[in-house]
Amino acid sequence: MPSFKPVVVIAGQGTGGASARAFAKEGYSVALIARGASGLKSLEDELKASGAEVASFAIPSYEYSSIQTAFKSIRTRYPSPEYNLRAAIYNSAYGVWRDFLSITPEEVKGSTEVHVEGAFAFAHEVITDFTKNEIDQTTGKRGILIFTGATASIRGNTTTSAFAAGKFAMRALSQSLAKEFGKQNIHVAHAVIDGGISTPLSRSRRNDPEWEKNEDVRLNPEGIAASYIYLAKQDRSAWTWELDLRPAHEKW
Amino acid sequence: MPSFKPVVVIAGQGTGGASARAFAKEGYSVALIARGASGLKSLEDELKASGAEVASFAIPSYEYSSIQTAFKSIRTRYPSPEYNLRAAIYNSAYGVWRDFLSITPEEVKGSTEVHVEGAFAFAHEVITDFTKNEIDQTTGKRGILIFTGATASIRGNTTTSAFAAGKFAMRALSQSLAKEFGKQNIHVAHAVIDGGISTPLSRSRRNDPEWEKNEDVRLNPEGIAASYIYLAKQDRSAWTWELDLRPAHEKW
Amino acid sequence: MPSFKPVVVIAGQGTGGASARAFAKEGYSVALIARGASGLKSLEDELKASGAEVASFAIPSYEYSSIQTAFKSIRTRYPSPEYNLRAAIYNSAYGVWRDFLSITPEEVKGSTEVHVEGAFAFAHEVITDFTKNEIDQTTGKRGILIFTGATASIRGNTTTSAFAAGKFAMRALSQSLAKEFGKQNIHVAHAVIDGGISTPLSRSRRNDPEWEKNEDVRLNPEGIAASYIYLAKQDRSAWTWELDLRPAHEKW
Amino acid sequence: MPSFKPVVVIAGQGTGGASARAFAKEGYSVALIARGASGLKSLEDELKASGAEVASFAIPSYEYSSIQTAFKSIRTRYPSPEYNLRAAIYNSAYGVWRDFLSITPEEVKGSTEVHVEGAFAFAHEVITDFTKNEIDQTTGKRGILIFTGATASIRGNTTTSAFAAGKFAMRALSQSLAKEFGKQNIHVAHAVIDGGISTPLSRSRRNDPEWEKNEDVRLNPEGIAASYIYLAKQDRSAWTWELDLRPAHEKW
Repeated sequence: MPSFKPVVVIAGQGTGGASARAFAKEGYSVALIARGASGLKSLEDELKASGAEVASFAIPSYEYSSIQTAFKSIRTRYPSPEYNLRAAIYNSAYGVWRDFLSITPEEVKGSTEVHVEGAFAFAHEVITDFTKNEIDQTTGKRGILIFTGATASIRGNTTTSAFAAGKFAMRALSQSLAKEFGKQNIHVAHAVIDGGISTPLSRSRRNDPEWEKNEDVRLNPEGIAASYIYLAKQDRSAWTWELDLRPAHEKW
Repeated sequence: MPSFKPVVVIAGQGTGGASARAFAKEGYSVALIARGASGLKSLEDELKASGAEVASFAIPSYEYSSIQTAFKSIRTRYPSPEYNLRAAIYNSAYGVWRDFLSITPEEVKGSTEVHVEGAFAFAHEVITDFTKNEIDQTTGKRGILIFTGATASIRGNTTTSAFAAGKFAMRALSQSLAKEFGKQNIHVAHAVIDGGISTPLSRSRRNDPEWEKNEDVRLNPEGIAASYIYLAKQDRSAWTWELDLRPAHEKW
Repeated sequence: MPSFKPVVVIAGQGTGGASARAFAKEGYSVALIARGASGLKSLEDELKASGAEVASFAIPSYEYSSIQTAFKSIRTRYPSPEYNLRAAIYNSAYGVWRDFLSITPEEVKGSTEVHVEGAFAFAHEVITDFTKNEIDQTTGKRGILIFTGATASIRGNTTTSAFAAGKFAMRALSQSLAKEFGKQNIHVAHAVIDGGISTPLSRSRRNDPEWEKNEDVRLNPEGIAASYIYLAKQDRSAWTWELDLRPAHEKW
Repeated sequence: MPSFKPVVVIAGQGTGGASARAFAKEGYSVALIARGASGLKSLEDELKASGAEVASFAIPSYEYSSIQTAFKSIRTRYPSPEYNLRAAIYNSAYGVWRDFLSITPEEVKGSTEVHVEGAFAFAHEVITDFTKNEIDQTTGKRGILIFTGATASIRGNTTTSAFAAGKFAMRALSQSLAKEFGKQNIHVAHAVIDGGISTPLSRSRRNDPEWEKNEDVRLNPEGIAASYIYLAKQDRSAWTWELDLRPAHEKW
């Protein structure tokens, strides 16, 4: 590992906070990308208060050019040779669960923009940076790129046409990249999150104290983040492309 | 079956010709949708010469509005009560097989437009029409919608990031629709074409008379079309969502 | 096709009757293999009454040697050159659905015997015979071997440990054989039956006239048999290894 | 965690040594089960020399009764209340890769015995013991049971009929158990080892110093063991049923 700190880029909020905290604790500098400047700012402040080196980059959309612009800003913020991108997590999602005939063209585009266009743009920037890295001697990696998937990444269902289409596409991308770039010691992984995640948003939506208290029935963002740290540490002889994560009591 | 003829809409060329011929032979009137008016016209002429009732609808792109416009024209061409859409096949594809870093944002958009936006728009029009149909007493169907997939629908590979992303997405759509609309007696199916298809284009590209002659090593469009006819005839007690199709000698 | 009739061997009762009737109607001579001589005899009688050429071979178990003995008898019954085995269907199943801790070692062995040992023995005899056949000019096949699977072939569930283990194993066998023998023009297929089949046994067990009457909610053996005939007719350019079959209204 | 040490039972040699070392380092007492007393003894000695608490239990076969006998001995060796089985790994395998027609009935039985009969017997003993445990407060587990799978667990291929049948079956078992016992806070996981493992046996068979030296092209047993430790530590909010493990440069 070089003497300067590695950088992780995290796109999307959701489990972003926990991932950011976990990677910061491992010594990474953090760059956050998300829509919605206010949520992003409060996450940045919280991380800074905990001593992490962190910068946030609000984007107007997940269009190709927005992602490219964000990465230009990141590279300015963490200039070379300090810039040493070693990990990237794409957990942006566009949730739309409704009967097919009521889903609008705009919602299909929304799902496509986040899960396909944005994911391709993000991967393009990340992998371009990774290819310039030396191989880390401990892990055998130039870098790791993790995609956060969902149940809908592997199974379409009655109300998931637009969501599953996006998530399947992102899984295809992750598998294609894992096969193409493994040979260059770039590790690409995909996590299938199969269950509800306990976040401020999901807790207020459900308003179900039982669900909130019961660790057997919902995912903690921290549990997901722990698995990402594990993936980042896997050594070159045994890399995981895909793992599923679900609460102990989940029915599946 | 009502006294007027059923209609099939076929999007995409490729195996479209064989599918059109096969459904026409079964007594369907055919509506063809594709980009590229000239190829479309020659297919229409060929089908007409064989005695089929056929109309073609050239579209400038697979954008939502283009597909909607095409369906408006189809409904004008086959006016109610004659209009009796009973089958639809979406076999449009956007092929791009290259290393990830060289794939352009435009190509990602191209794959998304054909495999996601166009597929959603097509399915929306088709299923809206199907829901108005009576259930056919022989098959138990209001209609059948078939998507043509590929190896890349179920497996990402080194050069398939953009193609597989689109094809995975379309498969997710087809599975979601099959689950949502089966209960309304609408049959949605997905065919995984796992091998090279012998078409004028593929034959001229390969320029390999051995491959062309050897029926064990490549798919005939007629074989694919035969499977679509079989799916269209499956009765309500035993419907297939997905089947694979490959030449006898294919290595897989 | 040679001038003498092709032979189909069908192992297992369940959908065996419908398959036997369907293949007989296509001109095949039928050899039935099953445990339970009485049920087998009544099926044989029924088929004969309908004009089919049929012989039945009761076996004491699905052990390797029982299957081998049955095939010796079949080859004696349909002597060469008349013997012209062109199709074989293995739809024997050993159903045990209970909580794991209550499943006995004998039940695990029972599932293994039917789904693994018997399936391997059956496939060995069938493929050995197929390799001696000429390639049929219409289908490009020396023969077709079809395995009847279930939902549990692709998904383990809370009460299916022993059943799913057997069904997964049989699916693995079918895929391995499809890949190994496709090159020799032997077609191996696997049908995933995803839903309840309406048979005399299942009807008496359920005792639910609504279910029995409603063709949208259960499989007919005839629908399954129709798909097997379709598979048998697929020409060499487009063979299916796997398809699923479920009633129109099935929740999945 | 109670004050006495947890116990891990490891069936099979292969990656057993590395797993044993890794779990011993985490404070587990180790019970080894395998055929072949001599190899087992030398592994036991090596582990003891490193300070681990370890006992080995040679079995004549993977028959149900052999496994049961081994567990009786283990429970005697680690008597209650000290006996505190918290983890179990089943990585026994029966390798046979040959063309289907040359595989003998005995080999099919061999694969079935190790991958089905033995796996069921092992799981039965382990889960029976787990159900008596208190839930560990850190992990939310009564215990974890891990199965070691292979590429052939998810894909049959030309020479893998017997091996894949066994491995598919074991995967079905693991999925059924994960679904049935998650609700009781018992964690069941399945690792798909997709590549060659560097063991004394594989190294001597290959006799390829390049392969041996190059950590990018083969799995280390230590890398696999590290993933098992990670699985054992996953907390109840985010459990993995399945992950794949392969070398960075593996073609897949």
